[in-house]
Amino acid sequence: MAAKKTTKTARNEPPPRPKMRPMGQLAPIERQTIEKIDTLARSAVEAVARGENPAMQMKMRALSNVSFNEKKRIIELGDKTQSREFFNTSMARKFMQTFLIANRCKELVGEGKTVSIRQMYYLTKHTLKGTSENTFEGQEESDPIIEDLEVTIDTLREELHLFANKRGLVTGNLVVNDAGDEIDLSKMGRGGWGIPSICEEKELKFVRNDAKFILLVEKQAVWHRLNEDRFWQKQNCILMTSEGQAARGVRRLLQRLSGELKLPVYCLVDNDPWGLYIYSVLKQGSINLAFESMRLAVPNVRFIGMSSLDYEKFDLPSAVEIKLSKEDIQRAQQMKKYPWFADAKWQREIDALLKNGFKMEVDSLLSKSIEFMTEEYLPKKLRDRDYLT
Amino acid sequence: MAAKKTTKTARNEPPPRPKMRPMGQLAPIERQTIEKIDTLARSAVEAVARGENPAMQMKMRALSNVSFNEKKRIIELGDKTQSREFFNTSMARKFMQTFLIANRCKELVGEGKTVSIRQMYYLTKHTLKGTSENTFEGQEESDPIIEDLEVTIDTLREELHLFANKRGLVTGNLVVNDAGDEIDLSKMGRGGWGIPSICEEKELKFVRNDAKFILLVEKQAVWHRLNEDRFWQKQNCILMTSEGQAARGVRRLLQRLSGELKLPVYCLVDNDPWGLYIYSVLKQGSINLAFESMRLAVPNVRFIGMSSLDYEKFDLPSAVEIKLSKEDIQRAQQMKKYPWFADAKWQREIDALLKNGFKMEVDSLLSKSIEFMTEEYLPKKLRDRDYLT
Repeated sequence: MAAKKTTKTARNEPPPRPKMRPMGQLAPIERQTIEKIDTLARSAVEAVARGENPAMQMKMRALSNVSFNEKKRIIELGDKTQSREFFNTSMARKFMQTFLIANRCKELVGEGKTVSIRQMYYLTKHTLKGTSENTFEGQEESDPIIEDLEVTIDTLREELHLFANKRGLVTGNLVVNDAGDEIDLSKMGRGGWGIPSICEEKELKFVRNDAKFILLVEKQAVWHRLNEDRFWQKQNCILMTSEGQAARGVRRLLQRLSGELKLPVYCLVDNDPWGLYIYSVLKQGSINLAFESMRLAVPNVRFIGMSSLDYEKFDLPSAVEIKLSKEDIQRAQQMKKYPWFADAKWQREIDALLKNGFKMEVDSLLSKSIEFMTEEYLPKKLRDRDYLT
Repeated sequence: MAAKKTTKTARNEPPPRPKMRPMGQLAPIERQTIEKIDTLARSAVEAVARGENPAMQMKMRALSNVSFNEKKRIIELGDKTQSREFFNTSMARKFMQTFLIANRCKELVGEGKTVSIRQMYYLTKHTLKGTSENTFEGQEESDPIIEDLEVTIDTLREELHLFANKRGLVTGNLVVNDAGDEIDLSKMGRGGWGIPSICEEKELKFVRNDAKFILLVEKQAVWHRLNEDRFWQKQNCILMTSEGQAARGVRRLLQRLSGELKLPVYCLVDNDPWGLYIYSVLKQGSINLAFESMRLAVPNVRFIGMSSLDYEKFDLPSAVEIKLSKEDIQRAQQMKKYPWFADAKWQREIDALLKNGFKMEVDSLLSKSIEFMTEEYLPKKLRDRDYLT
């Protein structure tokens, strides 16, 4: 092994030159991104030329700099900034890493290619010439640098041509154009269209919409049941599943559909603290990604269920009950204190969960009948405007 | 809570009558399934009428009844059977549960609806009248009963209208018809079509195929990279990702594509024991689902990479190396003893992994360049017929 390592280090060659497109062929947003990266790099070079310590300013990504904006109803980053300097032993490595990643992102944008954040790690990892030091030791080093770069030049990672793993499916009365292909989402059979990781305007366009609203369901099996019953056709809507916590692609797509097509968004999650959390991240963003709430949060999303009050309202059988765990109870009590759940109607909802002493899955609606969810539960909720915001 | 329980038990009503289609409207496979369930039920009723102990015979699903069929090259269940009897205190509960599930499956087939195995749990869970006993306490009770039923009446769960969560995406030069919708898989943009959980002939038909082979990749991000580079167009193929271990839908789709369209299948997984396992389950089936290998295994799938020999062959940099863990080494040593890896070429492959002392992810091919995988690695492998079977 030791012998092999030496050979390998020796044969690390410089990567081939990227096939950058001329600036004239780039979309405006691509040019903007490249200019932001160039500006960052230029300021460092100029500092060196002036004999100064090159530094970059970035908003602090820490709990102490995160707050809930009552007016916009989103979680956002405050104005506290920090400086990252080159001539500082604790910062030099990260400084170098930021520029390595910025450089690769510039190439990606120029080439019109995208890679996953794991692939970016491999694109930038190498052994520094003449040393045994690696530029990155693991992805846990490169991921935060990507977030730093996003904050520093105020650019979504999607605009840097980086993607996280995608998750989520969509079907319904909407025609889109994605990367040049026209896709009729009402002709997707039982499979649905996979929601891309990157749902920006450049690649994904809305061609024709007949739907009146969007229903996002947490669980894939619920989406399947509704799709099989052609719920989206009967109710004239767009039916999406996030398959758990919503990925960035799903959030961005929802935000664009809600904003550009002026469609109301309803969210159907399990009746438990995790379901409330999924809804809450969709609506006001998360603490971790507070710097991107503006681009990802959907403040007008409506919580259509499952509500703790549905148990009585729909006369559900005892088979639906799953006893709350100690963690569920603690989590619910925490949630009662969140400013976005301060309203009396939300306090009543969370109190009802605690009073019930049990949680419920959306799937359990099938204990009434196979099509209860499609033909009774959701239509009644929509008709009665029975939702929380 | 105690008071509530009583009320709820009292208000458990019988489920509404299902909307069964007349037998004449059913597809042949649907009629067959219903007849199989009816035969099972009739034999129990007749035993009771004769004053006998109703019993059903089922193949034993135990390691002692599983073996590798060298000729067919699949893992299959042997002929040992066990009997499940009604008048037997240790079997009565399972006997009752089997008929509860069989009855619901019959309704599903009759109605032309499908549900997830979790939803089936809710469909069949209720409190027995006049007692505090539940038909099922949890899904861990209902899942094995579903497998029992599959084996007893020799029917795939898909034919019983049950689905597991789906996973996997596909794009490429193939047109399918799914549930009446014609879907051109070469017009899926960046999203791909979600592979249904149930890929049986009744719903999913192959309309037109121009592809020459199928490439299945383990990782979604690798699929994304290849799709963005339009690998399937340049190489004229169908590009699928299993997103990890292949779900039943992916396996069944691969088997049908391979069999009905006579297409070779290449499999690209990470260079580690888990990747070899994913390949191995695709090819010869798994011990757990040995009773379904005939319907799910794809014995002619080819392992195209990543091979441990690729490190030298493609002059990869040391950045790709991830040290083997103790578990990796143990797992690789176990795998060397599997009969389906007995061939000298496989022994050489696994030995090379152990000798390297490191594993590699397909993503790490990007350390050569962004498009190395699309433009050099895979084309060379295909050209040189450099794969294992």
